[in-house]
Amino acid sequence: MTSQSVREETDFSEEQRAGLYHAIVNRRDVRGQFVADPVPDAVLARVLTAAHFAPSVGFMQPWSFLLISDPAVKARVHEDFTAANAEAAAMFEDDRQATYRRLKLEGIREAPLNLCVTCDRDRAGPVVLGRTHMPTMDLYSTVCAVQNLWLAARAEGLGVGWVSILHPDRLRDVLEIPERVVPVAYLCLGYVSHFNTKPDLETAGWRARLPLEDLLHFDRWGGDGDGRAEAASLRDAVRKSMAGVRNGVIS
Amino acid sequence: MTSQSVREETDFSEEQRAGLYHAIVNRRDVRGQFVADPVPDAVLARVLTAAHFAPSVGFMQPWSFLLISDPAVKARVHEDFTAANAEAAAMFEDDRQATYRRLKLEGIREAPLNLCVTCDRDRAGPVVLGRTHMPTMDLYSTVCAVQNLWLAARAEGLGVGWVSILHPDRLRDVLEIPERVVPVAYLCLGYVSHFNTKPDLETAGWRARLPLEDLLHFDRWGGDGDGRAEAASLRDAVRKSMAGVRNGVIS
Repeated sequence: MTSQSVREETDFSEEQRAGLYHAIVNRRDVRGQFVADPVPDAVLARVLTAAHFAPSVGFMQPWSFLLISDPAVKARVHEDFTAANAEAAAMFEDDRQATYRRLKLEGIREAPLNLCVTCDRDRAGPVVLGRTHMPTMDLYSTVCAVQNLWLAARAEGLGVGWVSILHPDRLRDVLEIPERVVPVAYLCLGYVSHFNTKPDLETAGWRARLPLEDLLHFDRWGGDGDGRAEAASLRDAVRKSMAGVRNGVIS
Repeated sequence: MTSQSVREETDFSEEQRAGLYHAIVNRRDVRGQFVADPVPDAVLARVLTAAHFAPSVGFMQPWSFLLISDPAVKARVHEDFTAANAEAAAMFEDDRQATYRRLKLEGIREAPLNLCVTCDRDRAGPVVLGRTHMPTMDLYSTVCAVQNLWLAARAEGLGVGWVSILHPDRLRDVLEIPERVVPVAYLCLGYVSHFNTKPDLETAGWRARLPLEDLLHFDRWGGDGDGRAEAASLRDAVRKSMAGVRNGVIS
């Protein structure tokens, strides 16, 4: 069986595969483009279902979804953001700080819905299959749920922004989250006027997209493939794949 | 503008959206179905490109991809798995331990490719936009890259299994990973004979899929929406969405 015939056997049409890649490439961390249109229940349900189908260590499914639409709760979270953001800004020097202060970094009040995705570390008892040697695996599972949700939202035309400039303990207080439960992600969610073509931080000149071919290692950290043709060939393929993305698709 | 008209304005065809959901619902943690067919460079490049388009805190892109095909390196990692797995098995009691010992939990040697996805915590200097108050955000960004890769692999017909029953320090030694870099995920990757319809742990009766509607909270932890019609309506929509998935799609 040739590799090509294996490819042809996948249960995805070209258009379905393109849909996944379209979501991956055009997903944005949305802070400034939210509109007030409510999110229909059926749409929100699909997005949450996508999150629930994330992988989880020991099939633990440690996530919960705390949906926030009460303006008073949003206002308290926004207050925390404002305090944390002032602390954060002060950590950057000179020009960098000036740029930082110009960035819009959250859409807490504008987004019709805020969503805190949490991890209940005790959901499956103290010993969890696959968590015994990597205790952070349940937090990582919860992040996989966030990424599923983010991609599904993009395909539904919904913007999502992850706000991490918050004191987690303060967030726990505001949302009455118990000790055993970790607030992993605080998301703003809603329809948007448009999706930007590039990440805001790339557009602002904060940092550039790194060349993917420089991030590959072979068989050990720093391993360049020992001159093997396979390594050079993969680097070329990665360069081509990344160049193709300039048109918004992976192909 | 009605919500329906917003929906119709998305830049996804129905089939493209279905493709994303198909990948999300039918992605599996593959341990036992790998075949030896090599993964073509172009396919592997697309999957790595998908990972590289993950969100990252402060546009840090902290990930690297360590590709392992050397059987000697795989054998050393497999030795570590065997030792860690024996320790893990002993933590479970009686029947549970017997079930645990019957489970196949990795495909390190059978999968043509192993892939360690790492997080370089120093990639963007000591102060990172968005990481100031949540220091784990760069690890979470790396997990988002893993999930993108996992979904892309599924759409390409490639299975991926995340092996977390490993001592991270031992993995660091075997792969010569420097101190500042965290090995976040050790993945087995390759074409598969088939994808199972359910998670292995669900099939084995280890744990059941949780009802998603029980994982929703409104405005605060434990908040049931205070009898608001919106909360009941969303719970109904979530139940319907999850029931629809029995046919392998989200709709």
